[in-house]
Amino acid sequence: MSVRASVPVDRTVGTAAEPRTVYLDHAATTPMVPAAVEAMTGLLGSVGNPSSLHASGRRARRVVEESREQVAAAVGCRPGDVVFTSGGTEADNLAVKGLFWARRGADPARRRVLTTAVEHHAVLDPAHWLAEHHGAEVEHLPVDSRGRLETAALAAALERDPGSVALVSVMWGNNEVGTLQPLDEVVALASAHGVPVHTDGVQAVGAVEVDVAALGVDALTVSAHKLGGPYGVGALVCRREVGLVPMVHGGGQEQDLRSGTVDAPSIAGFATAVTAAAEQQAEHAAHLAALRRRLVAGVRGVVGDVVENGDPTHRLPGIAHLTFPGCEGDSLLMLLDARGIECSTGSACSSGVPQASHVLLAMGCDDAAARGSLRFSLGRGSTEADVDAVVAEIGPVVERARAAGRRSW
Amino acid sequence: MSVRASVPVDRTVGTAAEPRTVYLDHAATTPMVPAAVEAMTGLLGSVGNPSSLHASGRRARRVVEESREQVAAAVGCRPGDVVFTSGGTEADNLAVKGLFWARRGADPARRRVLTTAVEHHAVLDPAHWLAEHHGAEVEHLPVDSRGRLETAALAAALERDPGSVALVSVMWGNNEVGTLQPLDEVVALASAHGVPVHTDGVQAVGAVEVDVAALGVDALTVSAHKLGGPYGVGALVCRREVGLVPMVHGGGQEQDLRSGTVDAPSIAGFATAVTAAAEQQAEHAAHLAALRRRLVAGVRGVVGDVVENGDPTHRLPGIAHLTFPGCEGDSLLMLLDARGIECSTGSACSSGVPQASHVLLAMGCDDAAARGSLRFSLGRGSTEADVDAVVAEIGPVVERARAAGRRSW
Repeated sequence: MSVRASVPVDRTVGTAAEPRTVYLDHAATTPMVPAAVEAMTGLLGSVGNPSSLHASGRRARRVVEESREQVAAAVGCRPGDVVFTSGGTEADNLAVKGLFWARRGADPARRRVLTTAVEHHAVLDPAHWLAEHHGAEVEHLPVDSRGRLETAALAAALERDPGSVALVSVMWGNNEVGTLQPLDEVVALASAHGVPVHTDGVQAVGAVEVDVAALGVDALTVSAHKLGGPYGVGALVCRREVGLVPMVHGGGQEQDLRSGTVDAPSIAGFATAVTAAAEQQAEHAAHLAALRRRLVAGVRGVVGDVVENGDPTHRLPGIAHLTFPGCEGDSLLMLLDARGIECSTGSACSSGVPQASHVLLAMGCDDAAARGSLRFSLGRGSTEADVDAVVAEIGPVVERARAAGRRSW
Repeated sequence: MSVRASVPVDRTVGTAAEPRTVYLDHAATTPMVPAAVEAMTGLLGSVGNPSSLHASGRRARRVVEESREQVAAAVGCRPGDVVFTSGGTEADNLAVKGLFWARRGADPARRRVLTTAVEHHAVLDPAHWLAEHHGAEVEHLPVDSRGRLETAALAAALERDPGSVALVSVMWGNNEVGTLQPLDEVVALASAHGVPVHTDGVQAVGAVEVDVAALGVDALTVSAHKLGGPYGVGALVCRREVGLVPMVHGGGQEQDLRSGTVDAPSIAGFATAVTAAAEQQAEHAAHLAALRRRLVAGVRGVVGDVVENGDPTHRLPGIAHLTFPGCEGDSLLMLLDARGIECSTGSACSSGVPQASHVLLAMGCDDAAARGSLRFSLGRGSTEADVDAVVAEIGPVVERARAAGRRSW
């Protein structure tokens, strides 16, 4: 699991060991920054439930509240708007369900959920669940060939019947192709009708400038392990005025918005990481963008017909999503992995069943192209040498994947 | 937050500093065992999303699956029955909602949820939510004056209309008074009617012998931080044959039963802690029980009219719940805290508003008695000196709390 000294031989692909791992899957998860490890481990040996009234409890509570202030400062919101969760997926679930329940509870006519066709499953699936079980009507707004929301479609959907819309949920930066959405326009359109806007900022926070108050979104999802913090913690930033109904019930922690013992050590690690990410965002983004350009140009120099996906301008700096015509993405992934290069075919696939990405299909790719893609995602520790390793290996890997593809057809 | 060398002066109660903290609130949270800290921190510096297909991902996946086997061995279930969650509260929510949805989905007539009046809010509140929003009918079965379920009431509730019962949820050991429930009888009654049984084992695992298969419950909630593991992780153990519908939607992790990036480091810490807890359970319980007897006898020697709550036989070994007539529990808590002794008035109160415990009220206590109680909960590091410190301080503390109570009346 660590950045290892040697890669063991993988007999399923039968290639020899490489001297080191090139980890280019930072959008799946990125290593913790040392300061966050330190903040967290410093608390693991201590005791005190933040809900307990005694001194140990109050000390833990202080850690949590100071962390809340740090998170708020890093994303530009009030501390009271930060609800700590177990991560991005729970925060997305809480946002979509909690805002729907709150809005629909106040006005039964508000049953429509407007979202895009390229959201993460952590938004799509809660919306689908609301449609199945809570009377929601979900509309997946179209994107262009670069993965960017057609704002005219959002405007039309809102205008058709504004009073029936419970919420709009549009992700900030896409986790597969890296396209940034026109959130300022989304906010302008929705707020004109008094409709709250949620955005999944899991990939954006740390990579682009984030100022919730200036942007005007009502709710933002943040995940710690995508920006140098620990797994198992994240936040939903949500303006209290909007209202939110909890999804997990029990002891009433987090002002009754998220029950469960508050995880002070992880929260401290999260706060440390997000503070560092916000402080270093500009130089981090520049570093990633330069590496990304080098990667794409290098790969194009070797594989002439490679197709770059996503928006060339409005994009996350660290994600390069490339289609290799005639290849299966899974074959490419395993062949690169055998050479010590770790990347992804899109979002981390939990089922093990290769499926064409809903994101690429929504962008108009055909099924074969959608399945023949790789996502390289750069991070804090990425170097020119990492990128050059991909460029050095990608030619023979693509050759081999194409040959395999031809054989199997 | 750590066991500290000196207690700072708390000006709200105005008492001088004590040399050390006596932490007797292990039922709220207990320190991590060193092996669990080691297992967890050893992974914080590494990278790899367990859902990623490359070598780093597969290594993380291996950590998770080996941990799953350890948890299963510790509680006596199959590895495939372990669903990792963010903790006990989420696991309780998943059990109550997920079993209800599964059973009601298969048969719309099954809408009744049978539970007790003394459950943790993490069971009571999801059941209440199902009643409000999903057509459940919740029955809170009565307990006797010792907090033990009246099994005749369960039998009657089942027999009244067995085909209408979705599930039975009865906690294993009560978190406030420590009473153990007659789970073997509950299982016998429910299984005669084919009704699944969930039990909240948050306080029981590690304190009593746990063998899920032998006991025959269908679902068990476990929390890591109550048994020497980290915050933010736990499990719902659930027999797959029973069926379970997920509550958190997204990437489809944990066989689609709990979406969200799988937190390998915390899971490794949890597995290490629960393995140690299971191995040491018998001697741990004997240690706690001896300390508990010493504590209760010592306090009774000083405060003659103290009332011990809970079941004298069927009980968790480490919880002593005592009522001090004429006192407010919160006053006692703060006075002891000022003397470096940390305990609780019951479950950790998150709202800050002192309320009479629903557990004590269900046991037939009057409101004043219910509010005049303290819970001392012993743990791994507890010593005779800790207990003796309580005995040394409790007399003057009770005196003072009684005087304050008389003044305010």
